Amino acid sequence: MASTGEASAHLLALDWGTSSLRGARINEQGQVLEERAFQRGILSVPAGGFAQVFEECFGDWVRAGARTCLISGMAGSKQGWAEAPYCACPAGFADVAAQLRWIQDPALTIRTAIVPGLSCELPCDLPGLNTLPDVMRGEEVQILGAMHLGGWRDGLCILPGTHSKWARIQDGRVTDFRTFMTGEWYALLSQQSLLARTVDAQAPFDPNAFALGLARARQGHNLLHNAFGARTLSLFARMEAGPLASYLSGLLIGEELRANDVQGARRITLIGSPSLTQRYALALATYGITAQAMGAEATWAGLHALRHHLPQSTPTTPTTPTA
Amino acid sequence: MASTGEASAHLLALDWGTSSLRGARINEQGQVLEERAFQRGILSVPAGGFAQVFEECFGDWVRAGARTCLISGMAGSKQGWAEAPYCACPAGFADVAAQLRWIQDPALTIRTAIVPGLSCELPCDLPGLNTLPDVMRGEEVQILGAMHLGGWRDGLCILPGTHSKWARIQDGRVTDFRTFMTGEWYALLSQQSLLARTVDAQAPFDPNAFALGLARARQGHNLLHNAFGARTLSLFARMEAGPLASYLSGLLIGEELRANDVQGARRITLIGSPSLTQRYALALATYGITAQAMGAEATWAGLHALRHHLPQSTPTTPTTPTA
Repeated sequence: MASTGEASAHLLALDWGTSSLRGARINEQGQVLEERAFQRGILSVPAGGFAQVFEECFGDWVRAGARTCLISGMAGSKQGWAEAPYCACPAGFADVAAQLRWIQDPALTIRTAIVPGLSCELPCDLPGLNTLPDVMRGEEVQILGAMHLGGWRDGLCILPGTHSKWARIQDGRVTDFRTFMTGEWYALLSQQSLLARTVDAQAPFDPNAFALGLARARQGHNLLHNAFGARTLSLFARMEAGPLASYLSGLLIGEELRANDVQGARRITLIGSPSLTQRYALALATYGITAQAMGAEATWAGLHALRHHLPQSTPTTPTTPTA
Repeated sequence: MASTGEASAHLLALDWGTSSLRGARINEQGQVLEERAFQRGILSVPAGGFAQVFEECFGDWVRAGARTCLISGMAGSKQGWAEAPYCACPAGFADVAAQLRWIQDPALTIRTAIVPGLSCELPCDLPGLNTLPDVMRGEEVQILGAMHLGGWRDGLCILPGTHSKWARIQDGRVTDFRTFMTGEWYALLSQQSLLARTVDAQAPFDPNAFALGLARARQGHNLLHNAFGARTLSLFARMEAGPLASYLSGLLIGEELRANDVQGARRITLIGSPSLTQRYALALATYGITAQAMGAEATWAGLHALRHHLPQSTPTTPTTPTA
């Protein structure tokens, strides 16, 4: 394998999720030279088939001389390529790098590691349950990337999605975080519940209806009740199927915001798809809060930045987690 | 048709819902002489086929001389036998009886009416929305039945189910009510969401896990977040699939209770299936509140009691709703 020359310093960065596989070739300065995306999420890969899918999708980049591959996301779960046990919070670059799961596969001609997800223990005052665990996989790299790109070490990251994450960062480490099932609930409610009959989940975003939903949620009414209101608004022809989808979205995102101390946060970074971060930015604006938004670049920046915390050579055995 | 004799005074009481059809033959004293249940909910009846299903299921009771048939439930919805427009709150026996939807069908040899559901307008302080409507169909008869059986005219009725109803009653009339999608959410979360992998929705009820869920909800944490906790408790092997179902049920019912001023209520009646009213009774007990529970008898008592508010003869045209 080439040990000198420009290509040898390239990082092969992968975000291998449940339903999709994305990759980027990144040079030593952190510049993304090329990106690829495949519908080859871990659920589509047969047992023992990860090295082959990797070769099919990125073999040419490996042969071009990339020296290291870092993979984030569900590839590190029990159902993935190799399980990377969660890194316990507080966790920053060094903690995550120390718990990389190196893949020992003779078929691999590039040193390859999976980034562990994070876990934290949230205080819980219940009999027999002093704490409740929370977990993330993939978002930790986006948070590290946001810190790297933004040059800050203290703040709050909101990562909207199927399972939204709210992560607090102090002195360059994620101290704790909480998950909200907002995106999954929106999908279930708008597509599987009674509301599916009268909500057009494919309708374009309606900012006015979204704002109404946000306002309703902020008034403190219960989501179990408010969601039924989306049904009766339709039954009494007071809102049409298109706006109803945005109203429901506003109810859910508003409920998520209400559960968090947004006004006490100093610096908020939103990380996710533009369509989602736009909605959260609108929601935060109703609290008078401005947030910086970023997308896929956070993932590539996080994996790039992690490179500077790697050991100089590939460990010969998988790293044993210490937490 | 017989106009005298004991059988002529029998009421044919039907609860015709979305997925099931139940019927009872009730004598003048309100005694249920016989009950039947069929999997012939309105969704299984082809357009124009209601009279035939009615004849197949209850024709012998009609020929035995029953004089009146009262039907509650979704048979009065747009998709039902004949639409019975909602009766607006406040509504008691007289209001509901005045808005019965009499069915004009030459094939019918018994005077037959559908009981309207109730609607109410809940205050709502949103631009362009001063009120939000709420609706019920079928539960109004159960509430009237509970009043009739209990001999009270002021109180709170909780009707757990797919869409739970909390109804306030003053001076013998339902003043307003609120719907909570608790039962439907439990089904979606335990069977369709990420949680379905690790929650055993068929497991027997676990009172300890249920109590933990109730306590967690009462501590004020957000349901969108708490539900994900049911996932991580499983991921970290801190709760098994069976108890997790009861924990999740406790989270949801606890959230429903938290949204209501249960401690301010004077008299609480729970109406529903024993397995559900048992859970709500346990939940109310954590607030130090005792509630009376009733089941199907409330439906039959409500339809029986409505009989005393009927006009003496069948209206020749359908009653026109005044609200």
